[in-house]
Amino acid sequence: MPHRLPAALALCLCATPALAQDVTEFRLDNGLDIVVIEDHRAPVVTSMVWYRTGSADEKTGESGVAHFLEHLMFQGTATTEPGDFAATVSALGGSNNAFTSYDYTAYYERVAADKLDLMLSMEADRMVNLDLSQPIVDNERNVILEERSQRTDSNPQAQFQEQMNAAQYMNSPYRRPVIGWRAEMEALSREDALDHYRTFYAPNNAILVVAGDVEPDAVRAMAEEHFGPLKPSDTLPPRARPQEPPQLAERRLTFHDERVAQPYVTRSYLAPERNAGDQSEAAALAVLAALLGGDPTTSVLAQKMQFGENPTAIYTMAGYDGTSVDPSTFTLGVVPADGVTLQEAEDAMDKVLADFLKDGVDAAQLDRIKTQLRASDIYNRDDSGGLANEYGAALAVGLTVQDVQDWPRALQDVTAEQVLAAARKVLDRRQSVTGWLEQEETTP
Amino acid sequence: MPHRLPAALALCLCATPALAQDVTEFRLDNGLDIVVIEDHRAPVVTSMVWYRTGSADEKTGESGVAHFLEHLMFQGTATTEPGDFAATVSALGGSNNAFTSYDYTAYYERVAADKLDLMLSMEADRMVNLDLSQPIVDNERNVILEERSQRTDSNPQAQFQEQMNAAQYMNSPYRRPVIGWRAEMEALSREDALDHYRTFYAPNNAILVVAGDVEPDAVRAMAEEHFGPLKPSDTLPPRARPQEPPQLAERRLTFHDERVAQPYVTRSYLAPERNAGDQSEAAALAVLAALLGGDPTTSVLAQKMQFGENPTAIYTMAGYDGTSVDPSTFTLGVVPADGVTLQEAEDAMDKVLADFLKDGVDAAQLDRIKTQLRASDIYNRDDSGGLANEYGAALAVGLTVQDVQDWPRALQDVTAEQVLAAARKVLDRRQSVTGWLEQEETTP
Repeated sequence: MPHRLPAALALCLCATPALAQDVTEFRLDNGLDIVVIEDHRAPVVTSMVWYRTGSADEKTGESGVAHFLEHLMFQGTATTEPGDFAATVSALGGSNNAFTSYDYTAYYERVAADKLDLMLSMEADRMVNLDLSQPIVDNERNVILEERSQRTDSNPQAQFQEQMNAAQYMNSPYRRPVIGWRAEMEALSREDALDHYRTFYAPNNAILVVAGDVEPDAVRAMAEEHFGPLKPSDTLPPRARPQEPPQLAERRLTFHDERVAQPYVTRSYLAPERNAGDQSEAAALAVLAALLGGDPTTSVLAQKMQFGENPTAIYTMAGYDGTSVDPSTFTLGVVPADGVTLQEAEDAMDKVLADFLKDGVDAAQLDRIKTQLRASDIYNRDDSGGLANEYGAALAVGLTVQDVQDWPRALQDVTAEQVLAAARKVLDRRQSVTGWLEQEETTP
Repeated sequence: MPHRLPAALALCLCATPALAQDVTEFRLDNGLDIVVIEDHRAPVVTSMVWYRTGSADEKTGESGVAHFLEHLMFQGTATTEPGDFAATVSALGGSNNAFTSYDYTAYYERVAADKLDLMLSMEADRMVNLDLSQPIVDNERNVILEERSQRTDSNPQAQFQEQMNAAQYMNSPYRRPVIGWRAEMEALSREDALDHYRTFYAPNNAILVVAGDVEPDAVRAMAEEHFGPLKPSDTLPPRARPQEPPQLAERRLTFHDERVAQPYVTRSYLAPERNAGDQSEAAALAVLAALLGGDPTTSVLAQKMQFGENPTAIYTMAGYDGTSVDPSTFTLGVVPADGVTLQEAEDAMDKVLADFLKDGVDAAQLDRIKTQLRASDIYNRDDSGGLANEYGAALAVGLTVQDVQDWPRALQDVTAEQVLAAARKVLDRRQSVTGWLEQEETTP
C-alpha cells in the first residue's frame, strides 16, 4: 500500500523517539527463540525459521554445503515426499522461499493467517525429520551447480565480486562464496549435507519469526504444539570462526572479461560489525555510507563526482552492512564517465575521501541523511515481512530484539565527530581491496 | 671439503647420465618407509624422521599447531624429561634440530655413526610416547610466540611475504603462515597439539632417512628393533586439502613500513607442483626459473635489467620449488637501481618477460643453465646430509625415490619449446600477486 506511506512519513518525522513496535519475544523450553510482530491490517502472516548457521560455519573443503542443505530441505521428510512442502504452500495460494548467507539460513512462507498452524507443523517436521534419498541428493547437486553456472560463472560481475571477497579476507570464512567453490560443490555428498543438518539444525539454534495478523499467545500455543516436542541439541559447536590476522598490505585486483560492457572500480575495507549492546560504531559507519554514497544525487561522492564541473563518474555508491557475526566490509564503487579511465575515476574517488576527512561532515548534509534514515525506518515498519527479515537476521547473528529497536535511535544519535572518527578508522587502505572490472587489460 | 669440488665437477660434467647413488629403500611391516644413503667417507650419520604432515594439514583456526608440536617433541616422553633429547645429542658431540613446512615436519640428528642406534631409539620413543605437562606447554607457547615476534612481526620483509601468500591462495591452506597467525597461536592448547600428534604421528605416516657411514642391513636391524613394535595408525586422514578455485583476477599488494631500507617488487604466480612419475612440467619450470633469474650475473633478468645500458635493477631473482603436495608458486623479484621507481622496475621486468616469450629461449643460454644444473646436482651429491633432505622432502610430498633419481635427468631433458610452453602457461597474470615493499607510500 505505497499510497499510504507519504502521510505516515509526514506525521512521524516530527516524532524523534523511536516508535514502539508490537513485538513480542519469548523462548520455548527447548531453546527455540520466537519473535512475533503483530500487524493486523491484512489477514496474512509471514512465517520465518532462521537457523544460526550459514556458509561461514561450513567445514573446510565443503564450501556450499549450507546452501546445498537449504535446497535439500524441500526434498521430503520421514512423512512427506520431495516437493510436498512447496506444493502445499502453493496450493494454499501462499508463497515460500529460502536463502542462505554467511551467518544464517532462513526459510519463509507467506500465507493466509489461518494457515500458520500448518506452516509451523511443516517447519517443525523438517527441522528434525529430513529424509534424503541418494538420487534426490544427486539431482539437487546438479541444481546448485547449474545455479552457480548461471549466477556466478556466466556473470563477470559476480565472478569479480567472488575474487574480491577472497582477497578481502585472509583467514575468515567470509572469504568463501556462499554458493561454494565449484570443485567442492561437485564433491558434496548426502552425508556432508546430513552432517551439517545434524550439527546445526535444532530448536536451540533457531529463531521463529512470525509477522502479520496473529496474536502472540496463539503463536506460542502453536509453536509449543509443533516445536515444543523437539529435543534441543547438546552438541552445538561454539560460533568461533577463524579470525582475521592484522591486514597490513593494501591489495588490488583487476578482472578482465570481454563480456564487461561497463567497467568500474570498487573498493572494500574491512569494517567492524554490530555487536549486542554496542552499536554506536556500526551506526556511525552506516551514517558514513549514507553520507558518502547512499543517495544517487545528494551524497558526497555523487555531488563531487557526478555533478561537479568535470564529472568523472556516472554512478557512485557506498555501502555498509554490519549485521554479521564477524567483521564485515565497507564498500565504495564508481562507474566512470565516458572518456574517464578507471585510474582517473579511482583518483577522483580518493580525492573526495581525502577532502572529506580533511573538511569534515557538513552539518546540513548530516541532518538530511538522518531525515532520510528516519523516513526509511518508517517505510520499513510498514512492511511486516521486511521487519521479520530485520529481526531474524539480527537475532541470527547474535543481536537482540532490543538492539533492533535501538538501531534507529543509534543512527539518529550519531554525531559528526563520530562519523569522522569511524571514517578515519575504517578508510585504512592497508585493510582494503581495490578492484577494477574492465573489458580489456589497461593495466601494465 | 669445498677444495675437492672443482676437480669432481670437471670430471663429472662430461658424464651425461645421472650418477648412480647408493640409495636403498625398504618399508617395515608397520608402514614406516626407510631410505638409506650410504656415504662412507667419514664415520658420521645424519638421521632424519620425516612426518607426512605440516601446517597445511592443520585444522582451520589452529594455524601454527604443526610447528608448535615440533617444539613440544623435545619436551619429554613417558620415560624422558623435557630437554633430554637435545641434551643427549649434544653430550655426544652431535647436532640436532627440526623444522616444519607446509607439507612435512622433520627431525634430524647428526652424530658419530656408532650413535645411530641410540638416535633411532629416541626417535621411536617420541613418535608415540610424547608426554606433556601443562606448564611445559604454556612455556613453549611463549617460545613460539616470541619466535613469531622476532622472525615475522619485527621483520617487514617477512610480514610482506606473509601477506603475499595470503593473497596468492584463495582456498588452499598454503595461504596460512607455517608459524601461524598470532591470535590462533595464542589459543593453541595442549589438547590441540596432542590431537595433531595422535592424528598424524605414526610409523605409517613417516619416513626415516639415514645418510652416512652405515650399511642398509644395519639400519634395517636397528629400525626393526626400535620402530618395528610401533602400531600403525588406521585412522590417518586422506591428504586431500581444499583446492584452489580458478584464479581469475590479478592481484596487487603494497606494504609500507618505515623500517624498509630497500624497496623491491616481487611477483608470484600459481604454479604446478612435481607429481610422481610426471615431473616434466615442473622440470621445465625449474629450468625457466634458472634461465630467468637463477644466476646473479648471467640470467635473463640480470642481463637485461642489471647490466644493460640503462640498468633498472641492482638485483633480480626467479624461483620455483615444486616439491609440494599442492600447487606451488613461481616467483620473480626485482630490487630497483637508484632513482628507479618500483613501477619502472616492474615495467622493466614485464618488458623482459614479454621479450622472452616473444624471442624464445637462447640455445647457448639453455646449455649453460643445464651445465650449471648438472654441476649443482654433483655438488649436492657430495653432501649426504643434503641428499637426506632431498629424499625426505620428496617422499614426504608423495614423490618416490625413483622420482628423486630421475629429476636431474628430467632437468637435462627439458627442451627450449617446453620452457617456453611452461612459461606461457605459468606467467598468467590472472593467477598472480604482485607486491611492492616500500618505506613510504608512493602509490595513489
